[in-house]
Amino acid sequence: MQRLEGGVTAPKGFLAAGVRSGIKQQGLDLAIICSEVSAVSAGLFTTNAVKAAPVLVSQERANTGKARAIVANSGVANAGTGARGRQDAVRMAGLAAEALKLDDESEVMVCSTGVIGHFLPMSKIEMGIAEAATNLSYLGGPAAAQAIMTTDTRPKIVAYEFNIGGTNVRIGGIAKGSGMICPNVATMFCFITTDIAITPELLHESLALAAEISFNSLTVDGDMSTNDSVIALANGMSGIKTIDSEGPELEAFQEALDQVMVELAREMARDGEGATKLVEVVVKGAESYADAKTAAMTIANSPLVKTAIFGEDPNWGRVIAAAGRSGAKMDPDKADLYFGDVKVMQDGVALDIPADESRKPMLEKELVITLDLKLGDDDARVFTCDFSYDYIKINAEYHT
Amino acid sequence: MQRLEGGVTAPKGFLAAGVRSGIKQQGLDLAIICSEVSAVSAGLFTTNAVKAAPVLVSQERANTGKARAIVANSGVANAGTGARGRQDAVRMAGLAAEALKLDDESEVMVCSTGVIGHFLPMSKIEMGIAEAATNLSYLGGPAAAQAIMTTDTRPKIVAYEFNIGGTNVRIGGIAKGSGMICPNVATMFCFITTDIAITPELLHESLALAAEISFNSLTVDGDMSTNDSVIALANGMSGIKTIDSEGPELEAFQEALDQVMVELAREMARDGEGATKLVEVVVKGAESYADAKTAAMTIANSPLVKTAIFGEDPNWGRVIAAAGRSGAKMDPDKADLYFGDVKVMQDGVALDIPADESRKPMLEKELVITLDLKLGDDDARVFTCDFSYDYIKINAEYHT
Repeated sequence: MQRLEGGVTAPKGFLAAGVRSGIKQQGLDLAIICSEVSAVSAGLFTTNAVKAAPVLVSQERANTGKARAIVANSGVANAGTGARGRQDAVRMAGLAAEALKLDDESEVMVCSTGVIGHFLPMSKIEMGIAEAATNLSYLGGPAAAQAIMTTDTRPKIVAYEFNIGGTNVRIGGIAKGSGMICPNVATMFCFITTDIAITPELLHESLALAAEISFNSLTVDGDMSTNDSVIALANGMSGIKTIDSEGPELEAFQEALDQVMVELAREMARDGEGATKLVEVVVKGAESYADAKTAAMTIANSPLVKTAIFGEDPNWGRVIAAAGRSGAKMDPDKADLYFGDVKVMQDGVALDIPADESRKPMLEKELVITLDLKLGDDDARVFTCDFSYDYIKINAEYHT
Repeated sequence: MQRLEGGVTAPKGFLAAGVRSGIKQQGLDLAIICSEVSAVSAGLFTTNAVKAAPVLVSQERANTGKARAIVANSGVANAGTGARGRQDAVRMAGLAAEALKLDDESEVMVCSTGVIGHFLPMSKIEMGIAEAATNLSYLGGPAAAQAIMTTDTRPKIVAYEFNIGGTNVRIGGIAKGSGMICPNVATMFCFITTDIAITPELLHESLALAAEISFNSLTVDGDMSTNDSVIALANGMSGIKTIDSEGPELEAFQEALDQVMVELAREMARDGEGATKLVEVVVKGAESYADAKTAAMTIANSPLVKTAIFGEDPNWGRVIAAAGRSGAKMDPDKADLYFGDVKVMQDGVALDIPADESRKPMLEKELVITLDLKLGDDDARVFTCDFSYDYIKINAEYHT
């Protein structure tokens, strides 16, 4: 796989733009991503019982498996806005369809992120969409990535070229989100574009598989947004034969999709609110994948573990205590624990290691914590970050 | 009910002592609570799969329903210590039985709290037990409460006199714990004494009911210790007839026990690591108690909710987003939300309230957040505290 610039505009036939419409205090805040031709689409959305208006609209449209464009804004989440919010979301998509001269407005997916409980400023949205439509370009991917940011400190952009049956094809992605819910500025988004051809069912399946090991294995603070949306568009413009069954073509696409989404998820964890370190929690040797994932997620969400990592303290007691309360099956007299490559616990008992040796891996910008339950063959990996003074600052000093 | 001084030594026939044995850097660190006569006992222990050695020992002994004494130390948790840890816990109880001249050493319950992964300093424990035994007194409750503290900033002591069938009876309790796990100094303890007479089965049942609405409805950081222990002793010295069935006597005892344990739980939340506010989260109108409890716990554990409270921001979006991801059944278009007495959301839509009005309840030292799901008749109440810079400080700057 060959790394490319451009994110969502790296694949053939995709245009994008990011503009300033004035919803946010400053910076770009409205993005359009558009395929030249109708694309196969798939979407995954928040499982929160409280869903923002645009999620309700896009979720319905994702079921048709066909789309041309995504329109997204930052600054206002259009959540907790009732019937008027749903009207606004439909109108926002309609305005984009009009500006893009599309026959079928249901081919536009709509996403919003930002403050909860405020209505969209529709006149700003209208002007922003008009400007974005005229600014659409094959180089617009990075600007679109900028325009969906809220508390992110940097845009998240990935693209690759890879090979399917002798043809070079491309995949690109952008993402935003630095808390599962940012202060009030809810949400994670991930938008994927590709020029492969694939059936909607297989695209949805591949997306779900990649999401499980990327965004569903990512936690900044355990909170889940009302607006989380992952949308993929495949427009077939690479000219390959449509992938419609299992086989090496689907495998090659899955590998590329996994790579793009895991990379974006890692960048999100690294850019977590107040984060000073990227942390991978690996649980090995579990009796089931569910057990491994549960234990890894509980460790990754533990405020005590996360503050210890911020303090660069190899506090193994907090890690095993979190695993112990997770509900995952474990035998405390059997488990081994590693910080980086340093084994600190064997068979449930602390090893007598000099403090400076066990502390060494804690000083790096990236830390891997590995818990080996030694009960079975199932593994899981979860991405997170540490919990710093700045997390409190960002989240306590933000006022509604 | 009449409030009394003295905690666990308020009921008839209970002695206690708290002494310094030198396990901690400073302060009292070893406590004994002892009944003059054999008492009925009940215990509840951590459900963490990783259990400290003293928990394994006391849990077994609690099953006999009979005890004379509790011996507890702070400073070292005797957790993650394997077979040697279990030997040490049994020996600690044995030393107490010897010092108290008890025939049956299995009548001593043993508890430890403090750093995980260190062995107990047995010579200090031995001297401390000898000193505590000679210091036992009817006024020793407060010293015992001091001796079990770790990161607590103040002891938690409650006692009441109440009436059962015309006889005045007493109940007392002490507790410790300011994180579910404190930095490394794991654990919450609650020790209850009473001079009523009751069967072991009913004492256990009453204790479990009171624990559900007190310590099991309390969260500082969502972490659960390897050492959590709640132990009750009832010595019958008030002279009342043994409570052996449902009826007004059992109800009177349950009411007093609930009062003592809820009060201790509230004090724990108020003294949570870095806490500046005591927070009660009430979820009303749920379809089931389990739904109400799940939603309340998820709100109370949300770092985003807790940092907003620290920032004194009535951030209702974070509260409903947490409820929404809890798994509890809710209709987002139906729920009402209150901060204190101020209704900020009705039927899922934010009310247009002046900022200074909605912020007013946030400025108090005690805050009640009420979410009314309007789906059924079940309620739950959970105690927690806010998340401050000091939480990070206490937990990040502590080094193993």
